[in-house]
Amino acid sequence: MRKIKVRKKILIANEEYAAKNRAFLKDRKLPCLNVISSPGSGKTTLLAKTIETLRGKLSIGVIEGDIQTDIDAKRIRKAGAPAHQINTEGACHLSAAQISYAFHKLPIDRLDLVFIENVGNLVCPSTFDLGETDKIAVLSVPEGDDKPAKYPMIFARAAAVLINKIDILYATDFNIKKVKADISKLNKKTKIFLVSAKTGEGMKQWCDWLEKRAINKRTKSAKKTRPRQ
Amino acid sequence: MRKIKVRKKILIANEEYAAKNRAFLKDRKLPCLNVISSPGSGKTTLLAKTIETLRGKLSIGVIEGDIQTDIDAKRIRKAGAPAHQINTEGACHLSAAQISYAFHKLPIDRLDLVFIENVGNLVCPSTFDLGETDKIAVLSVPEGDDKPAKYPMIFARAAAVLINKIDILYATDFNIKKVKADISKLNKKTKIFLVSAKTGEGMKQWCDWLEKRAINKRTKSAKKTRPRQ
Repeated sequence: MRKIKVRKKILIANEEYAAKNRAFLKDRKLPCLNVISSPGSGKTTLLAKTIETLRGKLSIGVIEGDIQTDIDAKRIRKAGAPAHQINTEGACHLSAAQISYAFHKLPIDRLDLVFIENVGNLVCPSTFDLGETDKIAVLSVPEGDDKPAKYPMIFARAAAVLINKIDILYATDFNIKKVKADISKLNKKTKIFLVSAKTGEGMKQWCDWLEKRAINKRTKSAKKTRPRQ
Repeated sequence: MRKIKVRKKILIANEEYAAKNRAFLKDRKLPCLNVISSPGSGKTTLLAKTIETLRGKLSIGVIEGDIQTDIDAKRIRKAGAPAHQINTEGACHLSAAQISYAFHKLPIDRLDLVFIENVGNLVCPSTFDLGETDKIAVLSVPEGDDKPAKYPMIFARAAAVLINKIDILYATDFNIKKVKADISKLNKKTKIFLVSAKTGEGMKQWCDWLEKRAINKRTKSAKKTRPRQ
Protein backbone atom coordinates (compact mmCIF):
# COMPACT_ATOMS: atom_id res chain seq x y z
CA MET A 1 0.00 0.00 0.00
CA ARG A 2 2.76 2.40 0.96
CA LYS A 3 4.35 2.14 -2.51
CA ILE A 4 1.07 3.10 -4.18
CA LYS A 5 0.58 6.08 -1.90
CA VAL A 6 4.02 7.52 -2.57
CA ARG A 7 3.79 6.98 -6.31
CA LYS A 8 0.48 8.82 -6.24
CA LYS A 9 1.98 11.66 -4.23
CA ILE A 10 4.80 12.20 -6.76
CA LEU A 11 2.37 12.11 -9.69
CA ILE A 12 0.00 14.51 -7.95
CA ALA A 13 2.84 16.99 -7.43
CA ASN A 14 3.65 16.76 -11.17
CA GLU A 15 -0.03 17.07 -12.12
CA GLU A 16 -0.35 20.22 -10.02
CA TYR A 17 2.61 21.82 -11.79
CA ALA A 18 1.27 20.62 -15.19
CA ALA A 19 -2.13 22.22 -14.45
CA LYS A 20 -0.35 25.42 -13.40
CA ASN A 21 1.63 25.42 -16.67
CA ARG A 22 -1.53 24.84 -18.71
CA ALA A 23 -3.24 27.80 -17.02
CA PHE A 24 -0.12 29.94 -17.52
CA LEU A 25 -0.10 29.15 -21.28
CA LYS A 26 -3.84 29.63 -21.66
CA ASP A 27 -3.71 32.98 -19.97
CA ARG A 28 -1.06 34.10 -22.46
CA LYS A 29 -2.72 32.40 -25.50
CA LEU A 30 0.66 30.78 -26.00
CA PRO A 31 1.00 27.34 -27.64
CA CYS A 32 3.73 25.09 -26.23
CA LEU A 33 4.87 21.96 -28.03
CA ASN A 34 6.72 19.15 -26.21
CA VAL A 35 9.05 17.50 -28.75
CA ILE A 36 9.88 13.86 -28.00
CA SER A 37 12.15 11.38 -29.80
CA SER A 38 15.09 9.01 -29.45
CA PRO A 39 18.54 10.55 -28.97
CA GLY A 40 19.95 11.63 -32.31
CA SER A 41 16.72 11.86 -34.32
CA GLY A 42 17.63 15.47 -35.11
CA LYS A 43 15.35 17.43 -32.74
CA THR A 44 17.76 20.34 -32.28
CA THR A 45 18.60 20.65 -35.99
CA LEU A 46 14.87 20.54 -36.71
CA LEU A 47 14.11 23.29 -34.17
CA ALA A 48 16.98 25.46 -35.43
CA LYS A 49 15.71 25.10 -39.01
CA THR A 50 12.13 25.83 -37.87
CA ILE A 51 13.29 29.02 -36.12
CA GLU A 52 15.15 30.13 -39.26
CA THR A 53 12.21 29.31 -41.56
CA LEU A 54 9.71 31.18 -39.37
CA ARG A 55 11.92 34.22 -38.74
CA GLY A 56 9.77 37.38 -39.00
CA LYS A 57 6.57 35.29 -38.82
CA LEU A 58 6.59 33.68 -35.38
CA SER A 59 8.66 34.55 -32.35
CA ILE A 60 9.83 31.23 -30.89
CA GLY A 61 11.42 30.33 -27.54
CA VAL A 62 12.92 26.95 -26.60
CA ILE A 63 13.28 25.03 -23.34
CA GLU A 64 16.09 22.51 -23.78
CA GLY A 65 16.23 19.31 -21.72
CA ASP A 66 19.43 17.28 -21.60
CA ILE A 67 21.09 14.95 -19.15
CA GLN A 68 24.26 17.06 -19.36
CA THR A 69 25.84 19.89 -21.44
CA ASP A 70 24.34 23.07 -22.91
CA ILE A 71 25.27 22.14 -26.50
CA ASP A 72 21.65 22.30 -27.65
CA ALA A 73 20.72 25.65 -26.06
CA LYS A 74 23.81 27.18 -27.71
CA ARG A 75 22.73 25.81 -31.11
CA ILE A 76 19.21 27.27 -30.66
CA ARG A 77 20.57 30.70 -29.66
CA LYS A 78 22.84 30.61 -32.72
CA ALA A 79 19.71 30.03 -34.84
CA GLY A 80 18.33 33.26 -33.37
CA ALA A 81 15.91 32.25 -30.61
CA PRO A 82 16.04 32.56 -26.82
CA ALA A 83 16.70 29.22 -25.11
CA HIS A 84 16.83 28.01 -21.52
CA GLN A 85 18.84 24.86 -20.83
CA ILE A 86 17.75 22.37 -18.16
CA ASN A 87 20.25 19.66 -17.18
CA THR A 88 18.46 16.73 -15.61
CA GLU A 89 21.73 15.23 -14.25
CA GLY A 90 20.64 11.69 -14.98
CA ALA A 91 16.84 11.95 -14.97
CA CYS A 92 15.23 10.47 -18.06
CA HIS A 93 12.62 13.15 -18.76
CA LEU A 94 11.71 16.73 -17.89
CA SER A 95 9.18 17.42 -15.11
CA ALA A 96 6.35 19.98 -15.05
CA ALA A 97 8.07 21.81 -12.16
CA GLN A 98 11.20 22.32 -14.29
CA ILE A 99 9.07 23.71 -17.14
CA SER A 100 7.24 26.02 -14.74
CA TYR A 101 10.58 27.51 -13.66
CA ALA A 102 11.91 27.66 -17.24
CA PHE A 103 8.95 29.73 -18.51
CA HIS A 104 10.23 32.59 -16.35
CA LYS A 105 13.69 32.30 -17.85
CA LEU A 106 12.34 33.07 -21.35
CA PRO A 107 11.04 36.47 -22.55
CA ILE A 108 7.65 34.75 -22.46
CA ASP A 109 5.43 37.78 -23.21
CA ARG A 110 7.24 38.40 -26.49
CA LEU A 111 6.79 34.81 -27.77
CA ASP A 112 4.20 33.31 -30.16
CA LEU A 113 5.29 29.70 -29.64
CA VAL A 114 7.35 27.72 -27.11
CA PHE A 115 9.08 24.43 -27.91
CA ILE A 116 10.17 22.04 -25.20
CA GLU A 117 12.93 19.75 -26.46
CA ASN A 118 12.64 16.84 -24.04
CA VAL A 119 15.52 14.48 -23.09
CA GLY A 120 16.23 12.11 -26.00
CA ASN A 121 14.13 9.13 -24.92
CA LEU A 122 11.28 7.49 -26.80
CA VAL A 123 9.81 5.95 -23.64
CA CYS A 124 9.70 7.94 -20.39
CA PRO A 125 8.74 11.45 -21.59
CA SER A 126 5.83 10.03 -23.65
CA THR A 127 3.41 9.61 -20.75
CA PHE A 128 4.62 12.44 -18.53
CA ASP A 129 2.39 15.55 -18.58
CA LEU A 130 4.27 18.86 -18.61
CA GLY A 131 1.13 20.95 -19.16
CA GLU A 132 2.14 21.41 -22.80
CA THR A 133 -0.44 22.22 -25.50
CA ASP A 134 0.59 19.20 -27.57
CA LYS A 135 3.21 16.53 -27.89
CA ILE A 136 5.19 16.22 -31.15
CA ALA A 137 7.04 13.01 -32.08
CA VAL A 138 10.16 12.91 -34.23
CA LEU A 139 11.29 9.65 -35.85
CA SER A 140 14.39 9.64 -38.03
CA VAL A 141 14.72 7.37 -41.04
CA PRO A 142 17.87 5.49 -39.86
CA GLU A 143 16.07 4.42 -36.65
CA GLY A 144 13.96 2.05 -38.72
CA ASP A 145 10.31 1.74 -39.71
CA ASP A 146 9.44 -0.67 -36.86
CA LYS A 147 9.59 2.01 -34.14
CA PRO A 148 5.87 3.01 -34.01
CA ALA A 149 4.94 -0.66 -33.44
CA LYS A 150 7.68 -1.16 -30.83
CA TYR A 151 7.38 2.17 -28.99
CA PRO A 152 3.69 3.03 -29.49
CA MET A 153 3.23 5.41 -26.55
CA ILE A 154 4.41 8.67 -28.10
CA PHE A 155 2.93 7.93 -31.55
CA ALA A 156 -0.49 7.33 -29.94
CA ARG A 157 -0.35 10.73 -28.22
CA ALA A 158 1.39 13.06 -30.69
CA ALA A 159 -0.51 15.85 -32.48
CA ALA A 160 2.10 15.54 -35.25
CA VAL A 161 4.84 13.07 -36.21
CA LEU A 162 7.87 14.32 -38.13
CA ILE A 163 9.75 11.70 -40.10
CA ASN A 164 13.16 13.31 -40.28
CA LYS A 165 16.36 12.65 -42.29
CA ILE A 166 14.49 11.73 -45.46
CA ASP A 167 17.61 12.92 -47.31
CA ILE A 168 19.24 9.58 -46.42
CA LEU A 169 16.21 7.46 -47.27
CA TYR A 170 18.12 6.03 -50.26
CA ALA A 171 20.77 4.55 -47.94
CA THR A 172 18.23 2.61 -45.83
CA ASP A 173 15.36 0.14 -46.27
CA PHE A 174 12.90 2.41 -44.40
CA ASN A 175 9.37 1.88 -45.73
CA ILE A 176 7.35 5.12 -45.54
CA LYS A 177 4.07 3.46 -46.48
CA LYS A 178 4.42 0.90 -43.66
CA VAL A 179 5.38 3.50 -41.05
CA LYS A 180 2.48 5.77 -42.03
CA ALA A 181 0.05 2.84 -41.73
CA ASP A 182 1.47 1.84 -38.33
CA ILE A 183 1.20 5.41 -37.00
CA SER A 184 -2.36 5.79 -38.32
CA LYS A 185 -3.36 2.55 -36.57
CA LEU A 186 -2.22 4.08 -33.25
CA ASN A 187 -3.54 7.58 -33.88
CA LYS A 188 -5.92 8.52 -36.66
CA LYS A 189 -5.77 12.26 -35.96
CA THR A 190 -2.01 12.80 -36.04
CA LYS A 191 -0.50 14.79 -38.89
CA ILE A 192 2.58 13.18 -40.50
CA PHE A 193 5.33 15.34 -42.06
CA LEU A 194 8.24 14.01 -44.11
CA VAL A 195 11.17 16.35 -43.57
CA SER A 196 14.90 16.78 -43.77
CA ALA A 197 15.99 19.42 -41.28
CA LYS A 198 19.41 19.22 -42.94
CA THR A 199 18.40 19.98 -46.54
CA GLY A 200 15.16 21.87 -45.71
CA GLU A 201 12.93 19.43 -47.64
CA GLY A 202 9.37 19.37 -46.26
CA MET A 203 10.05 22.18 -43.78
CA LYS A 204 7.56 24.54 -45.46
CA GLN A 205 4.58 22.22 -44.81
CA TRP A 206 5.60 21.74 -41.17
CA CYS A 207 6.16 25.47 -40.63
CA ASP A 208 2.84 26.39 -42.30
CA TRP A 209 1.09 23.98 -39.93
CA LEU A 210 2.88 25.54 -36.93
CA GLU A 211 2.01 29.04 -38.07
CA LYS A 212 -1.66 28.18 -38.48
CA ARG A 213 -1.78 26.54 -35.06
CA ALA A 214 -0.08 29.46 -33.34
CA ILE A 215 -2.44 31.95 -35.00
CA ASN A 216 -5.56 29.80 -34.43
CA LYS A 217 -4.65 29.38 -30.80
CA ARG A 218 -4.38 33.12 -30.36
CA THR A 219 -7.67 33.76 -32.21
CA LYS A 220 -9.57 31.00 -30.35
CA SER A 221 -8.18 32.01 -26.98
CA ALA A 222 -9.00 35.65 -27.68
CA LYS A 223 -12.62 34.66 -28.33
CA LYS A 224 -12.88 32.44 -25.26
CA THR A 225 -10.95 34.58 -22.80
CA ARG A 226 -12.20 37.89 -21.58
CA PRO A 227 -9.75 40.56 -22.67
CA ARG A 228 -7.53 41.62 -19.81
CA GLN A 229 -8.39 45.13 -18.44
CA MET B 1 11.48 10.38 4.53
CA ARG B 2 8.83 7.98 3.38
CA LYS B 3 9.81 8.51 -0.27
CA ILE B 4 13.43 7.64 0.42
CA LYS B 5 12.51 4.46 2.28
CA VAL B 6 10.35 3.15 -0.55
CA ARG B 7 12.90 4.02 -3.24
CA LYS B 8 15.48 2.13 -1.20
CA LYS B 9 13.16 -0.85 -0.88
CA ILE B 10 12.63 -1.09 -4.63
CA LEU B 11 16.36 -0.80 -5.31
CA ILE B 12 17.16 -3.42 -2.67
CA ALA B 13 14.72 -5.84 -4.31
CA ASN B 14 16.48 -5.27 -7.66
CA GLU B 15 19.94 -5.60 -6.08
CA GLU B 16 18.96 -8.92 -4.53
CA TYR B 17 17.84 -10.26 -7.90
CA ALA B 18 20.97 -8.82 -9.57
CA ALA B 19 23.18 -10.58 -6.99
CA LYS B 20 21.25 -13.80 -7.58
CA ASN B 21 21.78 -13.45 -11.35
CA ARG B 22 25.51 -12.79 -10.87
CA ALA B 23 25.85 -15.94 -8.73
CA PHE B 24 23.84 -17.94 -11.28
CA LEU B 25 26.15 -16.83 -14.11
CA LYS B 26 29.32 -17.36 -12.08
CA ASP B 27 28.24 -20.86 -11.15
CA ARG B 28 27.80 -21.67 -14.85
CA LYS B 29 30.94 -19.76 -16.01
CA LEU B 30 28.60 -18.01 -18.39
CA PRO B 31 29.27 -14.44 -19.57
CA CYS B 32 26.20 -12.24 -20.00
CA LEU B 33 26.35 -8.93 -21.84
CA ASN B 34 23.69 -6.25 -21.38
CA VAL B 35 23.44 -4.33 -24.67
CA ILE B 36 22.21 -0.74 -24.31
CA SER B 37 21.51 1.94 -26.92
CA SER B 38 18.92 4.37 -28.32
CA PRO B 39 16.01 2.90 -30.25
CA GLY B 40 17.06 2.16 -33.80
CA SER B 41 20.83 1.99 -33.33
CA GLY B 42 20.74 -1.50 -34.82
CA LYS B 43 21.08 -3.71 -31.73
CA THR B 44 19.01 -6.59 -33.13
CA THR B 45 20.71 -6.55 -36.54
CA LEU B 46 24.05 -6.50 -34.73
CA LEU B 47 23.14 -9.47 -32.53
CA ALA B 48 21.77 -11.43 -35.50
CA LYS B 49 25.01 -10.80 -37.43
CA THR B 50 27.09 -11.72 -34.35
CA ILE B 51 25.20 -15.02 -34.01
CA GLU B 52 25.76 -15.81 -37.70
CA THR B 53 29.47 -14.88 -37.54
CA LEU B 54 30.08 -17.00 -34.42
CA ARG B 55 28.08 -20.02 -35.59
CA GLY B 56 29.99 -23.19 -34.70
CA LYS B 57 32.30 -21.24 -32.38
CA LEU B 58 30.04 -19.92 -29.61
CA SER B 59 26.56 -21.00 -28.65
CA ILE B 60 24.62 -17.79 -27.99
CA GLY B 61 21.24 -17.13 -26.34
CA VAL B 62 19.39 -13.80 -26.27
CA ILE B 63 16.97 -12.16 -23.83
CA GLU B 64 15.00 -9.54 -25.73
CA GLY B 65 13.48 -6.53 -23.95
CA ASP B 66 10.87 -4.43 -25.70
CA ILE B 67 7.95 -2.26 -24.67
CA GLN B 68 5.70 -4.24 -27.02
CA THR B 69 5.88 -6.83 -29.86
CA ASP B 70 8.08 -9.90 -30.31
CA ILE B 71 9.58 -8.66 -33.60
CA ASP B 72 13.13 -8.81 -32.19
CA ALA B 73 12.94 -12.32 -30.67
CA LYS B 74 11.66 -13.61 -34.01
CA ARG B 75 14.60 -11.99 -35.83
CA ILE B 76 17.07 -13.58 -33.39
CA ARG B 77 15.50 -17.04 -33.78
CA LYS B 78 15.67 -16.60 -37.55
CA ALA B 79 19.42 -15.95 -37.15
CA GLY B 80 19.67 -19.34 -35.44
CA ALA B 81 19.78 -18.65 -31.69
CA PRO B 82 17.30 -19.29 -28.89
CA ALA B 83 15.58 -16.09 -27.71
CA HIS B 84 13.18 -15.19 -24.93
CA GLN B 85 11.07 -12.05 -25.40
CA ILE B 86 10.15 -9.83 -22.44
CA ASN B 87 7.51 -7.15 -23.04
CA THR B 88 7.83 -4.42 -20.43
CA GLU B 89 4.38 -2.95 -21.33
CA GLY B 90 5.56 0.62 -20.91
CA ALA B 91 8.50 0.25 -18.52
CA CYS B 92 11.66 1.94 -19.76
CA HIS B 93 14.22 -0.75 -18.87
CA LEU B 94 14.47 -4.42 -17.92
CA SER B 95 14.71 -5.42 -14.25
CA ALA B 96 16.93 -8.04 -12.63
CA ALA B 97 13.84 -10.07 -11.65
CA GLN B 98 12.79 -10.30 -15.32
CA ILE B 99 16.28 -11.50 -16.27
CA SER B 100 16.26 -14.06 -13.47
CA TYR B 101 13.04 -15.55 -14.87
CA ALA B 102 14.26 -15.35 -18.49
CA PHE B 103 17.43 -17.38 -17.77
CA HIS B 104 15.16 -20.37 -17.16
CA LYS B 105 13.41 -19.84 -20.48
CA LEU B 106 16.69 -20.36 -22.38
CA PRO B 107 18.59 -23.68 -22.78
CA ILE B 108 21.09 -22.08 -20.42
CA ASP B 109 23.37 -25.09 -19.85
CA ARG B 110 24.07 -25.36 -23.57
CA LEU B 111 25.12 -21.69 -23.96
CA ASP B 112 28.57 -20.07 -24.04
CA LEU B 113 27.29 -16.50 -24.02
CA VAL B 114 24.04 -14.69 -23.21
CA PHE B 115 23.10 -11.31 -24.63
CA ILE B 116 20.46 -9.12 -23.03
CA GLU B 117 19.05 -6.65 -25.54
CA ASN B 118 17.64 -3.97 -23.27
CA VAL B 119 14.75 -1.63 -24.14
CA GLY B 120 15.96 1.01 -26.63
CA ASN B 121 16.82 3.82 -24.23
CA LEU B 122 20.17 5.53 -23.72
CA VAL B 123 19.26 6.76 -20.23
CA CYS B 124 17.35 4.50 -17.83
CA PRO B 125 18.96 1.08 -18.44
CA SER B 126 22.48 2.57 -18.05
CA THR B 127 22.50 2.67 -14.27
CA PHE B 128 20.25 -0.30 -13.57
CA ASP B 129 22.09 -3.45 -12.46
CA LEU B 130 20.77 -6.69 -13.95
CA GLY B 131 23.61 -8.81 -12.56
CA GLU B 132 25.16 -8.92 -16.04
CA THR B 133 28.89 -9.58 -16.56
CA ASP B 134 29.31 -6.37 -18.55
CA LYS B 135 27.39 -3.59 -20.24
CA ILE B 136 27.91 -2.95 -23.96
CA ALA B 137 26.95 0.37 -25.58
CA VAL B 138 25.89 0.75 -29.20
CA LEU B 139 25.94 4.17 -30.88
CA SER B 140 24.92 4.46 -34.52
CA VAL B 141 26.50 6.99 -36.85
CA PRO B 142 23.26 8.84 -37.77
CA GLU B 143 22.57 9.58 -34.08
CA GLY B 144 25.44 12.06 -34.14
CA ASP B 145 28.88 12.35 -32.56
CA ASP B 146 27.67 14.48 -29.62
CA LYS B 147 25.94 11.58 -27.84
CA PRO B 148 28.75 10.46 -25.47
CA ALA B 149 29.00 14.04 -24.13
CA LYS B 150 25.23 14.40 -23.80
CA TYR B 151 24.40 10.91 -22.49
CA PRO B 152 27.60 9.99 -20.61
CA MET B 153 26.17 7.35 -18.26
CA ILE B 154 26.35 4.28 -20.48
CA PHE B 155 29.65 5.26 -22.12
CA ALA B 156 31.25 5.64 -18.69
CA ARG B 157 30.16 2.09 -17.74
CA ALA B 158 30.45 0.04 -20.94
CA ALA B 159 33.14 -2.62 -21.37
CA ALA B 160 32.86 -2.02 -25.13
CA VAL B 161 31.28 0.60 -27.38
CA LEU B 162 30.19 -0.38 -30.87
CA ILE B 163 29.88 2.46 -33.36
CA ASN B 164 27.40 0.96 -35.79
CA LYS B 165 26.18 1.89 -39.30
CA ILE B 166 29.62 3.01 -40.49
CA ASP B 167 28.41 2.08 -43.99
CA ILE B 168 26.46 5.39 -44.05
CA LEU B 169 29.27 7.49 -42.60
CA TYR B 170 29.66 9.22 -46.00
CA ALA B 171 26.09 10.57 -45.76
CA THR B 172 26.64 12.24 -42.35
CA ASP B 173 29.04 14.66 -40.65
CA PHE B 174 29.84 12.17 -37.86
CA ASN B 175 33.41 12.71 -36.61
CA ILE B 176 34.96 9.40 -35.47
CA LYS B 177 38.04 11.06 -33.98
CA LYS B 178 35.91 13.36 -31.81
CA VAL B 179 33.61 10.56 -30.64
CA LYS B 180 36.54 8.31 -29.75
CA ALA B 181 38.14 11.14 -27.75
CA ASP B 182 34.86 11.88 -25.93
CA ILE B 183 34.35 8.19 -25.05
CA SER B 184 37.94 7.85 -23.84
CA LYS B 185 37.51 10.89 -21.58
CA LEU B 186 34.59 9.09 -19.87
CA ASN B 187 36.12 5.63 -19.82
CA LYS B 188 39.75 4.86 -20.52
CA LYS B 189 39.30 1.08 -20.40
CA THR B 190 36.47 0.67 -22.89
CA LYS B 191 37.15 -1.01 -26.21
CA ILE B 192 35.74 0.80 -29.26
CA PHE B 193 34.68 -1.13 -32.39
CA LEU B 194 33.67 0.46 -35.70
CA VAL B 195 31.13 -1.84 -37.33
CA SER B 196 28.38 -2.14 -39.87
CA ALA B 197 26.05 -4.95 -38.87
CA LYS B 198 24.44 -4.51 -42.29
CA THR B 199 27.54 -4.98 -44.49
CA GLY B 200 29.57 -7.02 -41.97
CA GLU B 201 32.44 -4.51 -41.83
CA GLY B 202 34.32 -4.67 -38.51
CA MET B 203 32.31 -7.66 -37.29
CA LYS B 204 35.38 -9.93 -37.20
CA GLN B 205 37.21 -7.78 -34.61
CA TRP B 206 34.09 -7.58 -32.41
CA CYS B 207 33.44 -11.33 -32.67
CA ASP B 208 37.10 -12.18 -31.95
CA TRP B 209 36.86 -10.03 -28.80
CA LEU B 210 33.65 -11.80 -27.75
CA GLU B 211 35.16 -15.21 -28.38
CA LYS B 212 38.23 -14.42 -26.30
CA ARG B 213 36.09 -13.08 -23.45
CA ALA B 214 33.79 -16.10 -23.45
CA ILE B 215 36.74 -18.47 -23.43
CA ASN B 216 38.70 -16.47 -20.82
CA LYS B 217 35.67 -16.33 -18.60
CA ARG B 218 35.31 -20.10 -18.73
CA THR B 219 39.03 -20.68 -18.09
CA LYS B 220 39.22 -18.15 -15.23
CA SER B 221 36.02 -19.40 -13.61
CA ALA B 222 37.20 -22.98 -13.95
CA LYS B 223 40.36 -22.08 -12.02
CA LYS B 224 38.46 -20.18 -9.31
CA THR B 225 35.50 -22.49 -8.87
CA ARG B 226 35.72 -25.99 -7.47
CA PRO B 227 34.59 -28.42 -10.13
CA ARG B 228 31.08 -29.67 -9.47
CA GLN B 229 30.94 -33.28 -8.19
